[in-house]
Parts: sequence; structure tokens; C-alpha cells
Amino acid sequence: MKFSVTVTLKKDVLDPQGKVVSQTLKNMGVENLNQVRQGKFFEIDLDENDTSKGHDKVKEMCEKLLANQIIEDFKINKAE
Amino acid sequence: MKFSVTVTLKKDVLDPQGKVVSQTLKNMGVENLNQVRQGKFFEIDLDENDTSKGHDKVKEMCEKLLANQIIEDFKINKAE
Repeated sequence: MKFSVTVTLKKDVLDPQGKVVSQTLKNMGVENLNQVRQGKFFEIDLDENDTSKGHDKVKEMCEKLLANQIIEDFKINKAE
Repeated sequence: MKFSVTVTLKKDVLDPQGKVVSQTLKNMGVENLNQVRQGKFFEIDLDENDTSKGHDKVKEMCEKLLANQIIEDFKINKAE
């Protein structure tokens, strides 16, 4: 069973990496760009048939390793 | 209008970063873990009301800057 996880910086946390991407896109001629924010993406393949159990496991991984909850939020989705 | 973009390594491309995350999780006691692959995530906020035009713009950004299409795939979703 595969899950996809996105880890993003909380709204009020500065995102210098996203700022650089945004500025680069503008320099390349992209117009009407308000903001770019960058985050991390994980695809986690678990040997687990129970969706709810799998979700809980992935949540634990996020809390313990993948996300720094002081400055980051995470979102878990079941991947097809 | 906000779009979210995930950039992932193509299937046959080695992902050392994902391997390290996977190994670390195993060392922390996580069981039944088959694989972890890591990618990038972007949230792009555009000043654009037409979904299809917005999508095309984001696609261009991916092709020109955000993804290296030789080794990476990208996926664009409209964010709420």
C-alpha cells in the first residue's frame, strides 16, 4: 500500500528556497506570479493491507522523522 | 489560483535520499517498510482566473525550471 506525504512550511515561516524559485521564474519572464512555496514530498510503500493502520504508521513516521512540527505541517494521502 | 506540483525521480533512477530515509525509519523500528522515495513539492500561487491557462503556465514552469525531465517526472494539481 502506497502513501504520499507532503511536508510544507507553516504559513508564517519564511521560505527562502521558494522565494528564490519565485524570483528566478520572474526573471525568466513569468508574469502574474504571486508566490511560490517549496516543500518535501515522500512516497512511502508499506507492506500493510489495512488503510487505517497504514495511515497511522505513516503519521508516526511523519511525527518522528519526516516533519519538524515546530515549523512544518504534513499531509498524508493514500496513493493509488 | 493555487496549483501544487510534485516532482519525483523517474522509476528507474536511484534515489539515495529516499534510501537513507528508509534505512533510518527501519533503524527506528518501523516494520513492513518496502520503499521510500523522496521528491520535491511546490505550491504555486498565480494571479490567473482561467484554470486551463493557469495549468499551462505551471506546466511551462515545470518544463523550464522546476523539473529535470531527463530524470524526473512532474504532476500538477489544482489546489483548493
